[in-house]
Amino acid sequence: MKRRSRNPGSQTALRQLNRQRIIDTLLGSGPSTQAEISRSTGLSTATVSNIVKNMAAKGLVFTSPTTSSGRRAVSVTFNGNGAIAVGIDFGRSHVRVVLANLSYQVVAERAVPLPLGHHASESIKAAADLLARLLAEADLPRSAIVGAGAGIPGPIDRRTGTVVQGAILPEWVGIHLLDRLEKVLEVPVYADNDANLGALAEVTWGQYGSVSNLMFLKIGSGIGAGLILNGAPYYGHVGVTGEIGHATINEHGPICRCGNRGCLETVASTATMIELLGRGSAEPLTVGDIVSRALAKDSATLRVIDDAGLAVGRAIGNVANLINPEIIVVGGPLAGLGAILLDPIRRGLLRHAVPVVGESTTLAMSSLGDRAEALGAASLVFAQQGISRR
Amino acid sequence: MKRRSRNPGSQTALRQLNRQRIIDTLLGSGPSTQAEISRSTGLSTATVSNIVKNMAAKGLVFTSPTTSSGRRAVSVTFNGNGAIAVGIDFGRSHVRVVLANLSYQVVAERAVPLPLGHHASESIKAAADLLARLLAEADLPRSAIVGAGAGIPGPIDRRTGTVVQGAILPEWVGIHLLDRLEKVLEVPVYADNDANLGALAEVTWGQYGSVSNLMFLKIGSGIGAGLILNGAPYYGHVGVTGEIGHATINEHGPICRCGNRGCLETVASTATMIELLGRGSAEPLTVGDIVSRALAKDSATLRVIDDAGLAVGRAIGNVANLINPEIIVVGGPLAGLGAILLDPIRRGLLRHAVPVVGESTTLAMSSLGDRAEALGAASLVFAQQGISRR
Repeated sequence: MKRRSRNPGSQTALRQLNRQRIIDTLLGSGPSTQAEISRSTGLSTATVSNIVKNMAAKGLVFTSPTTSSGRRAVSVTFNGNGAIAVGIDFGRSHVRVVLANLSYQVVAERAVPLPLGHHASESIKAAADLLARLLAEADLPRSAIVGAGAGIPGPIDRRTGTVVQGAILPEWVGIHLLDRLEKVLEVPVYADNDANLGALAEVTWGQYGSVSNLMFLKIGSGIGAGLILNGAPYYGHVGVTGEIGHATINEHGPICRCGNRGCLETVASTATMIELLGRGSAEPLTVGDIVSRALAKDSATLRVIDDAGLAVGRAIGNVANLINPEIIVVGGPLAGLGAILLDPIRRGLLRHAVPVVGESTTLAMSSLGDRAEALGAASLVFAQQGISRR
Repeated sequence: MKRRSRNPGSQTALRQLNRQRIIDTLLGSGPSTQAEISRSTGLSTATVSNIVKNMAAKGLVFTSPTTSSGRRAVSVTFNGNGAIAVGIDFGRSHVRVVLANLSYQVVAERAVPLPLGHHASESIKAAADLLARLLAEADLPRSAIVGAGAGIPGPIDRRTGTVVQGAILPEWVGIHLLDRLEKVLEVPVYADNDANLGALAEVTWGQYGSVSNLMFLKIGSGIGAGLILNGAPYYGHVGVTGEIGHATINEHGPICRCGNRGCLETVASTATMIELLGRGSAEPLTVGDIVSRALAKDSATLRVIDDAGLAVGRAIGNVANLINPEIIVVGGPLAGLGAILLDPIRRGLLRHAVPVVGESTTLAMSSLGDRAEALGAASLVFAQQGISRR
C-alpha cells in the first residue's frame, strides 16, 4: 500500500536496497560473518554492521560472536521463524487467513464462508476472529507478526488507499482500508488487489521464482490481471493496473458494470456464464456447478466456456502484444477446468498476438488454487518490509 | 541489444549497480572525493576506488590528487565530453545521425533522405558516411565514440538480435543487425525498436525525466509503442513489446500486413490515411500533405484523422487499463497536428479506459519531433554502458 519511493537514488531507497542485498546474501549463502557479507555485497563494514544491528533488533537475524581466520568476528544468521506475516484474502463469499514465516512456510491457515453481499465490516471482523484463532492454535504471540497483507477483489487507488468504483465488492468502495484493518487487527497492514497478489504468489510461493515478466489472470465474477514486470510487482501510476476485464471486446455489446459496453467481463466472467447457463433453472447456478457440468461434458456448458476462453484469449493476445510476458498464469475458481478452459484461451491468444509473441508466451493454470491470493498477501508483507526474495 | 542480466543478484549486475550509484553521485553532487562518494553511496572505499580506476581508464572520469580535512584524497570529476554516443535513426525514407556527449548535448547532427523501399545495406552505408562526416565536422577522433545506438522501425527479437517479420521495413527482416552495423561502423552497436527509443528519449532528453511509467506512441506507417515501466525501459520476454498497432479493433476488418484482421494499423496508420484520402488523385499523397490539409481544415482529412484518433484512443484505453501509465506521449510524423489528432485520441481513451485510469492519464504530443528516435538511440548507448541517468 505504501508508495514505493519515486526516487531510486534517495537515501531511504538506498538503505532498503542495501538491506535487501544483505538478506539476499544470507538467503543464498546461509549464516555469514559481517566481513563475509561486506565482501560479497561490496558494502562497507560500517554499513553492514548498522543494518545487521537494526535487523537484529527486529528479530529478523540472530548475531553471535565467532572467529574467522583466528580473529573475532560476528556471525549473522537469518531468523526464518522470527517474523510471521499474515495473509488475508477477502472474497465475495469467503475470508481466508494464512500465517506464514520468512522461510515461506505456512504455519497455520483457515477459511470461512460468508454470505454474498455481506458488508465489509462483517468480513473484517471474520478475519480478525480467524487471526486470533490461528495465533492461539499455532501458539504464537501477536508480537511475532510483522504485518498483515490484505487482498481485495477490486482496484485500489494508491494515492488515497481506497477501493475505487467498479470493484467486485461494491460494499468496499470508498473505504479507507488500511485504517479500518489496522484498527481491528492491531498490526501494520498492506493491501493490494487480489490479482496483483496472485501474481506475487506465483513468483514467491509458486514455481515461477525465476520469471521476470509474468501475468496472473484471475477469471471469476470479475476478470483482472496482476503483473510482475522486470522482476518486480507492477503498480503503474495510481495503482489501478491489469483491468483487462474492461477491455472492449464488442463495441456495441451489453452494458458493463463499469459503465462501458461490451467489456470482456460481459462475455467471459463467471457471472456471465452463470447467467447464460442458469436460464430456466429453478436453483441459481454456482461456479462449482459450471466446473462439474463441464467435466461431465455438458455441451451447452462446454460451448459457453469455449466462447469465454476465446474472448479471454483475444484480450490477452492484445496484452501480450504490449508487454510480451514470458508466462501467463490463469487462476480463479475455474482453474479446475484445466485444458477445457486453457485450450480456447490459447487459440484466442495465438489468433490475436503477433506470431513471435504468441509463440513465445507460455500459458498455464495456477498450481496454487484458491490459496494464491492469501499466500500472495503474506508475500506482500515481506516485500513491503524489504525482506523478500523478490 | 544485449540482454540485461536475468539475475539481479549476480556479481555483474551488482558491479553495474555500484557503478551507477557512483555516476548518480557525481552527476548529483559534482566533483567529489572518493571518501565522499563512499559515504554517500554506502560502498566500501575499496569498491569505490576500483570502479573509479576502471572508469578513469575509459575516460569517463578524471581523477586528481587533492586534500580533504588536511589529508590526501582523490578528487573524481565526471568527464561530460569524454565519451561520445552515436544515435542513428533508420527510417523508411531517411537516415538521421546525431553525436551526443555524456552531458546530453548534441555535438553534431545530420539527416539524409533515402528512396522508399531502399535496401538495408544502402541505409547502413548512408549512416556510415554521415558518421564519418560528423566526426570530421566536430573534429572528434573515432576513439571518442563509446558506441552507436540504432533505431529500427520494427520489432527486434532480443534472443537472436534479428528484426522479426512484420517490420515496417521488410528489407531488414532476418538481418543480424549488430554484426552488420559493427562491421561497417567499427564501434560497439546497440539496436532497438524506434518506439522504444522514442520512450527512452522522452525520459532522458525530453521533459519527463521524473516520470516512472511512460508510453511513447509512434503513429506513422506503422503504429508502435515504447514503454518506460517502474523507471526503466521495458523489453518483456523476447524484446517484442508495444505492438499496439496489431490490437484488434475490428474482428472482421481488413487483412493487416501481420496476417491478422482489423488491426489498429488498418484503421489509423498514415499508410491507411494516405490510401483513404489519395483515391482519385493523380499524385501519391504524402504525410506532409495530410498535415497541411488538416491544418487548412479540409473536411475529409479532418474526418479521417478523427476516426483514426478515436481508434487509437480505444486501443490506448485498453492499454491504460492494463499498465496505468502516468503519461502517454504521441510522436511520429503527425505530431504537427497537435490538438487535431490529440482530441479524438483523448475522447477514445476516456471512453474506453476505466474512469480512474482515464482521468489520471496525461496525453501529450512529443516535443522532440523527428529527432526523438535518434536522440533515444544515443541514450541507449549510455544506458547500455551503465553510464546513464536512468
